[in-house]
Amino acid sequence: MRAIFVVLMLGSLIPLSATDPQQVSLMPMPASVQMKTGQLAIDSSFSVGISGHSDVHLRHAVELFLDSLRRQTGMPPLDMKVTEAAQAKLVVHCARASKAVQELGEDESYSLEISPAGAKLDAATPLGIMRGLQTFLQLVQTTPDGFAVPAIAIQDKPRFPWRGLMIDVGRHFMPLDVLKRNLDGMAAVKLNVFHWHLSENQGFRVESKKFPKLQEMGSDGLYYTQDEVRDLIAYARERGIRVVPEFDMPGHSTAWFVGYPELASGPGPYQIERKWGVFDPAMDPTKESTYKFLDGFIGEMAGLFPDQYFHIGGDEVNGKAWDANPNIKAFMQAHGRKNNQDLQAYFNTRVQKIVSKHGKTMVGWDEILRPDLPKDIVVQSWRGQDSLAAAASQSYRGLLSFGYYLDLNWPASQHYAVEPLSGAAGLSPEEKQRILGGEACMWSEYVSPENIDSRIWPRAAAIAERLWSPQDVTAVDSMYQRLEYVSRWLDWLGLTHNFGYAPMLSRIAGTNDISALRTFADVVEPVKDYTREEIEVVEATSLSPLNRVIDAARPESATARHFADLVDALIAGRADPEGEQEVRAWLARWRDNQTKLQPLESQSFLLKEIVPLSQDLSAVAAAGLQALDYIDRGERAPSAWATQQFALLEQAHKPKGQLLLVVAPSVQKLVEASSGQKAAAQK
Amino acid sequence: MRAIFVVLMLGSLIPLSATDPQQVSLMPMPASVQMKTGQLAIDSSFSVGISGHSDVHLRHAVELFLDSLRRQTGMPPLDMKVTEAAQAKLVVHCARASKAVQELGEDESYSLEISPAGAKLDAATPLGIMRGLQTFLQLVQTTPDGFAVPAIAIQDKPRFPWRGLMIDVGRHFMPLDVLKRNLDGMAAVKLNVFHWHLSENQGFRVESKKFPKLQEMGSDGLYYTQDEVRDLIAYARERGIRVVPEFDMPGHSTAWFVGYPELASGPGPYQIERKWGVFDPAMDPTKESTYKFLDGFIGEMAGLFPDQYFHIGGDEVNGKAWDANPNIKAFMQAHGRKNNQDLQAYFNTRVQKIVSKHGKTMVGWDEILRPDLPKDIVVQSWRGQDSLAAAASQSYRGLLSFGYYLDLNWPASQHYAVEPLSGAAGLSPEEKQRILGGEACMWSEYVSPENIDSRIWPRAAAIAERLWSPQDVTAVDSMYQRLEYVSRWLDWLGLTHNFGYAPMLSRIAGTNDISALRTFADVVEPVKDYTREEIEVVEATSLSPLNRVIDAARPESATARHFADLVDALIAGRADPEGEQEVRAWLARWRDNQTKLQPLESQSFLLKEIVPLSQDLSAVAAAGLQALDYIDRGERAPSAWATQQFALLEQAHKPKGQLLLVVAPSVQKLVEASSGQKAAAQK
Repeated sequence: MRAIFVVLMLGSLIPLSATDPQQVSLMPMPASVQMKTGQLAIDSSFSVGISGHSDVHLRHAVELFLDSLRRQTGMPPLDMKVTEAAQAKLVVHCARASKAVQELGEDESYSLEISPAGAKLDAATPLGIMRGLQTFLQLVQTTPDGFAVPAIAIQDKPRFPWRGLMIDVGRHFMPLDVLKRNLDGMAAVKLNVFHWHLSENQGFRVESKKFPKLQEMGSDGLYYTQDEVRDLIAYARERGIRVVPEFDMPGHSTAWFVGYPELASGPGPYQIERKWGVFDPAMDPTKESTYKFLDGFIGEMAGLFPDQYFHIGGDEVNGKAWDANPNIKAFMQAHGRKNNQDLQAYFNTRVQKIVSKHGKTMVGWDEILRPDLPKDIVVQSWRGQDSLAAAASQSYRGLLSFGYYLDLNWPASQHYAVEPLSGAAGLSPEEKQRILGGEACMWSEYVSPENIDSRIWPRAAAIAERLWSPQDVTAVDSMYQRLEYVSRWLDWLGLTHNFGYAPMLSRIAGTNDISALRTFADVVEPVKDYTREEIEVVEATSLSPLNRVIDAARPESATARHFADLVDALIAGRADPEGEQEVRAWLARWRDNQTKLQPLESQSFLLKEIVPLSQDLSAVAAAGLQALDYIDRGERAPSAWATQQFALLEQAHKPKGQLLLVVAPSVQKLVEASSGQKAAAQK
Repeated sequence: MRAIFVVLMLGSLIPLSATDPQQVSLMPMPASVQMKTGQLAIDSSFSVGISGHSDVHLRHAVELFLDSLRRQTGMPPLDMKVTEAAQAKLVVHCARASKAVQELGEDESYSLEISPAGAKLDAATPLGIMRGLQTFLQLVQTTPDGFAVPAIAIQDKPRFPWRGLMIDVGRHFMPLDVLKRNLDGMAAVKLNVFHWHLSENQGFRVESKKFPKLQEMGSDGLYYTQDEVRDLIAYARERGIRVVPEFDMPGHSTAWFVGYPELASGPGPYQIERKWGVFDPAMDPTKESTYKFLDGFIGEMAGLFPDQYFHIGGDEVNGKAWDANPNIKAFMQAHGRKNNQDLQAYFNTRVQKIVSKHGKTMVGWDEILRPDLPKDIVVQSWRGQDSLAAAASQSYRGLLSFGYYLDLNWPASQHYAVEPLSGAAGLSPEEKQRILGGEACMWSEYVSPENIDSRIWPRAAAIAERLWSPQDVTAVDSMYQRLEYVSRWLDWLGLTHNFGYAPMLSRIAGTNDISALRTFADVVEPVKDYTREEIEVVEATSLSPLNRVIDAARPESATARHFADLVDALIAGRADPEGEQEVRAWLARWRDNQTKLQPLESQSFLLKEIVPLSQDLSAVAAAGLQALDYIDRGERAPSAWATQQFALLEQAHKPKGQLLLVVAPSVQKLVEASSGQKAAAQK
């Protein structure tokens, strides 16, 4: 047995005495925060009182709040209970009920006043109370005298009424408990729409009693029963979250055709798709039987899902199945449909009428937007803010998802910078209002129940802030600092984004001794965008194991971000001696890591693919140490040496094992600073 | 933000090529293990076939096995399924069904043969299959070529038929999900009895439909409904675990009296007890109405709990309530009951008849053993092996729990050394057979749902091995090495013994920056035995928060154990230069830790109590470094210096904040080795 040192990135303490609201670890940042003097103790005398309107949603919200508070403080169950308002330390005052079925645009505003004597939370509806209670939980801190919340005055309301998280359970099925813990996470950061992407080429995930072959033949047995769906919707409702189902059509629908080939444009038979990508099969939009089926199906689902909105997908129809079918070509000619886009518009118009007949408002992806659709539909844009603004100017309401795709492995800062109204400069205030908000999207080609939390959290919290907080809340440093706190709160809720990492690395290493692997995994990230698919050695399918280093590595390396800050300070001459010492310690650690990792590499098939990048890490770190030596000696590094290091760094920038070595850019800066030369721009 | 180094203790790799069965990371160690050549790949072609007898328990066991295998390997759900035996890589052959209600002593033996071509698991009953499947899971390893199990031949059967874990849900209620994950842990180490301690002075935890005031007034609303009880029993049954309920009487029963004061010997009224200890209230054994109530109650519970055994507690009646009641004194005189023990024997005899009338066999703690009880009862001994042997010689069957109390915070090795038959030397083979096994006991004064897993696991696995494996499996080093693997397997099952540590420390520190606190917490342990109660500053109750360092610190410090091994090797001259370097690194780290911890101490009320011991750690580590310097220089440390260090160490041995500094004894050895002097024995 060996003792080994493992590095964690840790946030600094945010003191209760902070007077700068940006220093308060609230996320999303409220519309208005005013720090006051003193604090309110959270001790065994703490209790919540309800004054004003009270109903089951409100009482349940207070119960959930108390559960969270108990978990957060470790205080026992009996000391806190709902009590008469007059004696309560936190008085919750709610003006009226929220709607039986939660609606888009319901009032979520609240005000929270905390003084050393007590706290008051006011809101028009139980939804506002739910949001305010989450804020209260985020304020609870360990202090010299006990647990406490700071005296503060908060006025808060969301900037956008639709703040969603989409989870694709079609490509990889996610059990109900995975969804529930993610709903808890959503509630913690005030997201209010769970967009449930329920059907895909790779799986149809809901029980239909009317068309049971959908789930029986299209899901590998991995689907939600209607009871489970109702259970999840109730769970979401208790957290102030709407559930919008999506059934993608006419494309992305191979799984439907396994049981019902007559819906398809081609002859079949069909099998559940195992590969990833855009596929040819599509519904036949020319047959009346298709609409009869959809009428039955949508009618059934409209009864199961109470939300006003019903998402029909509508994306990525490649048209090949239509091109290949003479009957469809004939239909197009007969009805003056010039091309496949026209034909899809016809389909959408028919489906919209069915959705509308069953009392619902249709939502679809960008492609559905055609002027022949009525104005009450909602367009979800994966194309960008300009397309969203264009829709708004044509009187359509829209949602932004472009820039919020969590599966692309972007850093939180990149999502955070995506402003829904950035294309809306030319819009009138009324048109701007049609931009309802946005949704973070978790497409699931490369996620399993084991690692999905680490792909969603904590980055989705940065998107949640973008959608809730005032437009001018944009300071990235503050965002990252607060994100670390969010990450810990999510631990209390049972999210596994932190807990899953070590066990996955341990499996990969084939031993509990994971320190060297962890040192490596801490400074790599999965390739970005759609690069993984492009450079897969073996084509990935829905049956591929997701147990590689790329599946364990975090989308964003906190270590690399921290190291980059240290290097920037050092180069700018802002570093203290401790800072430089730390840069050196990191570089020395990385330089020596390959030697430590090597004994493991021969023992595990899952480590083989990281050998080249692990060698790069050592070489790059050695270069960084040399650069630092030159800088320390006040000596200019020789040009030949610099050229050699730039060549090494260029090599190290290339993905290997579909991983990126994300400390390489900082080392490049050190080499540049030491030599006074610039590396050629990296691709 | 600062980067900080955190230390983890990590196990070494156990290679697939091991030929010594002690080197295979199986726990409990099977009765017979023979290593063979080669390995069987666990890949996408892996499947399980069932030949011979098949029933719902067996098929469910195979499903649970596949779930675990998927989690352990990260392989996708579709590649492994139950299939025809002929094509399967693992063929499961079961001779016959197990009993509808699992019975004590049912055949749990199995044989497992693995060759590179396939594996065969044979057992008489589905119970044996369950045990063998757990063994198979423990054999799965990451290899250079993929996941695999080694070729091996195992013949296995338990040494004792009753291998239990008792959880006390009376003092602190544990939600159903906490119990379920602990049942998963039990199944992983082949424990087969969940002893559910359901009533206490502090709470009555089961719904009675006949006497609803029991749970309504005696539980603070924290009880299991009968549906939940049935659900848990079914969950246990699927894992080959019997559920034995305990309702403690006539003492430990204050919570019953809140709703039914007429059962008590004193006049009442009664309230749920909040304090810990042995209390006066006891049932009135002289009133016929008491037995009428118990007949109704036991009848109802006998229907709810299908197991043959029914535990009536019977421990720790102090007799004061009987002494104080003239009617009871009169009864004793009239019936020739000389003392309270005699009176309790009368009570037990009456209760035994009721239990027997409802078809059950009575179990009770040591105190119930009196010759007037029939021989079919079972005695659970908290007094020791001699008392157990004495019972066996009187024809009573018995269980050992003495030495297996997890709440005493003993190291695993201490539990591991407790041999159930150590008092049985004089018994005949038939008498020895009456010693059925034992139970690990988790009394819950100081555990909450948050930290209970860390008190049970992984130490309970050492007890599980004692009860399953042959008597001569006693090597402590091997046990600890395998225990580390068990700990990781339990992570896959969702046990929180590892995951809960960092969040608890983070709450205590009031920040995510827990590295200094972790360094400290890693080398302290809660005080042992019942010392916590004896030295509490504020009397603990069932309402006390369990959020202190003592509640987060592990019962056994792996760091201290590892450090002790290093120091022992160093003193014995067995240490390599790396070993000495590591000792130095640890000592330097601890010496400097107080300086790092200090800034936090003023910010959190939960850190104040550790200041003295944190100072001790630094001082002790500094002494250790000085001793090492003397040793390195080949110089004898001056006597005056040694005397000074011994005084310091004596101080450091004393518990502070109810914590023990468990690296102090190793430092003492260093001081002794450097000075050639012996410290006075520590108390």
